[in-house]
Amino acid sequence: MTSFSQALSAAQALDRADSLVGRRALFSLPEGCLYLVGHSLGPPPASALERIAAAQKAWQRELVRSWNSAGWIDLAERAGARIAPLIGVDADEVIIADSVSVNLFKLAAAALPLARRKLIMVEEDEFPTDQYIAEEMARQLGSAFQRLEAGSAFGALKQGGILIRSAVNYRSSEVTDINAFEEEAEKHGTLIVWDLSHATGVMDLSLRASGARLAAGCTYKYLNGGPGAPAFVYVERNLASRLASPLPGWMGHDSPFSFTPDYTPRAGTARFASGTPPILSLAALDGALDAFEGVSPAALCAKARSLGDIVIAEADAAGLEVMSPRVQPQRGGHVSVRIKEGYPVVQALAANGIMADFRAPDTVRLGLSPLFLSHEDVARAMAQLHDILQSGSWDRPEFHARSKVT
Amino acid sequence: MTSFSQALSAAQALDRADSLVGRRALFSLPEGCLYLVGHSLGPPPASALERIAAAQKAWQRELVRSWNSAGWIDLAERAGARIAPLIGVDADEVIIADSVSVNLFKLAAAALPLARRKLIMVEEDEFPTDQYIAEEMARQLGSAFQRLEAGSAFGALKQGGILIRSAVNYRSSEVTDINAFEEEAEKHGTLIVWDLSHATGVMDLSLRASGARLAAGCTYKYLNGGPGAPAFVYVERNLASRLASPLPGWMGHDSPFSFTPDYTPRAGTARFASGTPPILSLAALDGALDAFEGVSPAALCAKARSLGDIVIAEADAAGLEVMSPRVQPQRGGHVSVRIKEGYPVVQALAANGIMADFRAPDTVRLGLSPLFLSHEDVARAMAQLHDILQSGSWDRPEFHARSKVT
Repeated sequence: MTSFSQALSAAQALDRADSLVGRRALFSLPEGCLYLVGHSLGPPPASALERIAAAQKAWQRELVRSWNSAGWIDLAERAGARIAPLIGVDADEVIIADSVSVNLFKLAAAALPLARRKLIMVEEDEFPTDQYIAEEMARQLGSAFQRLEAGSAFGALKQGGILIRSAVNYRSSEVTDINAFEEEAEKHGTLIVWDLSHATGVMDLSLRASGARLAAGCTYKYLNGGPGAPAFVYVERNLASRLASPLPGWMGHDSPFSFTPDYTPRAGTARFASGTPPILSLAALDGALDAFEGVSPAALCAKARSLGDIVIAEADAAGLEVMSPRVQPQRGGHVSVRIKEGYPVVQALAANGIMADFRAPDTVRLGLSPLFLSHEDVARAMAQLHDILQSGSWDRPEFHARSKVT
Repeated sequence: MTSFSQALSAAQALDRADSLVGRRALFSLPEGCLYLVGHSLGPPPASALERIAAAQKAWQRELVRSWNSAGWIDLAERAGARIAPLIGVDADEVIIADSVSVNLFKLAAAALPLARRKLIMVEEDEFPTDQYIAEEMARQLGSAFQRLEAGSAFGALKQGGILIRSAVNYRSSEVTDINAFEEEAEKHGTLIVWDLSHATGVMDLSLRASGARLAAGCTYKYLNGGPGAPAFVYVERNLASRLASPLPGWMGHDSPFSFTPDYTPRAGTARFASGTPPILSLAALDGALDAFEGVSPAALCAKARSLGDIVIAEADAAGLEVMSPRVQPQRGGHVSVRIKEGYPVVQALAANGIMADFRAPDTVRLGLSPLFLSHEDVARAMAQLHDILQSGSWDRPEFHARSKVT
């Protein structure tokens, strides 16, 4: 028995015990495609495509009446409520609005007056947009700003202020201990705005139990909401009612159609809605969330990590350096491996129907979406990667040619 | 010859001379529907529906590769460039991003340091969201704020500061003289952020020639971009390069895929992009703009006003009070009439296939989208309105029942 056939049988055994195995059928994926980029852009569940068609039909037939008849007017709330159980909070504590960038700004700016110090902090290896938003916000609001050394955020919590922090690092996949961070932050008058972009739909998040009160996250990665689908906001209910959104658009108004000049914010988290949401994109997201109905975040997380263990075992066998934590509780939904020639290797994988992504200078990220990937898929992908590296078949001119987006 | 048949022949004569008459065929409107709500939510051009289908197919088949292969990565710029001729600026001076609310914030906050005084002004009859954004922004940025009396903005320009101002008032349809305002503002160190929501696609805007340098606008009204379609931003090129967006998301970065911690904004207006745009909604908008190819804003404006003249003549004949300016150059793309029982009247119109909108307490707005409405359509709609008022057929219980959104 070859090492590949051993790995394959082991993977198939895991698949037989997988409670999520039936979910694969909900997705519309191209024949023969092994898609390991669900951490960047999730594929469409068929239900998302159906909901786009329905929204389009409503626009065409019912026109402006669709705000009522197709339920567009509260779709941002209803879709938010469906994300709530995936992050461990109540249904009315999540709303869909804007982008992650804009939401991080709204939350950090709103919470700043409650922090012990007027200081905004972010680690230097945090997702770049989060850093851009944090630094410029501090300048605009007359706040101090600190770009912290990688790994120093926990120690910096004692300063008081606002920390913007990913629950899962976009590059390394390292998980932050939300509980421990919140406990420390609480002691020192620091508030943490969580970026859940690489965590939602794949980690076992219990924000309320962990003491987290402010978060934003992306919906087009593991939630499969569609390209650029609008983001979500979570604010703990009691805190929300003490905060003013710095971008109080009419959708966050208590009575948006009264058209009064004064702003009366809605109760709770809903006040963090702003302008009119992009309904076609929002409808796709709401449809995509059908695929998560009845799935617990614990099951999603367990499966993603089980898939990640295969990646790590096979990377070890191939002599590749694993950049992500090897121990399950410290690792998110993707595994990054270091491959010097990562760019052409990823192209060579794609030529074999396996999609992964590359981040310069040498990181290959393998996204382990638990709803549509099987253990067998991942074992096959890693075997292919091994072959490509062994044979040197990645070293062809067509695999080196750069496209605009990597 | 009855007065209606006279009005009808006159309208038909105008239609025979209408250069835009062929555009109606580009739209997908329900059979028998006279749609006078294009100032709120435009109907779909067939090209918008086709582009949604194409974006959906790209998501499904090409997945994350579509950022390149389907051109998603620069779609916000390409669609912006197509709006530019409709507002009289250069192609690279417009970008699609976020909502009008968020864009007004970005522009006003970015321009505030250049104003002679740290003051944000807005009139009390301005679109409510604009007022909410202006007031809260002032609080956040430590700026003074003035809610000006209706009609006093021109006089207030001498104070220095930022004025947020609609080119066409959402309720009255009154047009602001952009030239005169900009000339006065320039003298006194005031900068004006224009809200073009009720003007784009229906007014003959020449922003550059008028000296306007900062504007945001809605794309789902006269531009027919689809429900909640993302908004646009215009910043005059030279000014743009002196401004920092307060929401510097990665899409406004000069090299978004280098993932550097420091923000290097793109040259010009493109720096006002922020997070990832909602691609499905953006694709619909880009498709919708096909309907404007080769159409001059002067032709759009002339036709909308010609349609408006019919509304006014027929409103006069019916003894209704016209709330919009009677003289063409002072009037935008819709005409508002005062009808005490406006709510049930609008419902009665709808029961006859004619859609209009009602704003409490007594305003009925008739949107005169020039691409898909004919003079005959408007004459027929006004005759029906006349009949409904004369006969009292609006006074039925079912027309009084309120829906959630009015």
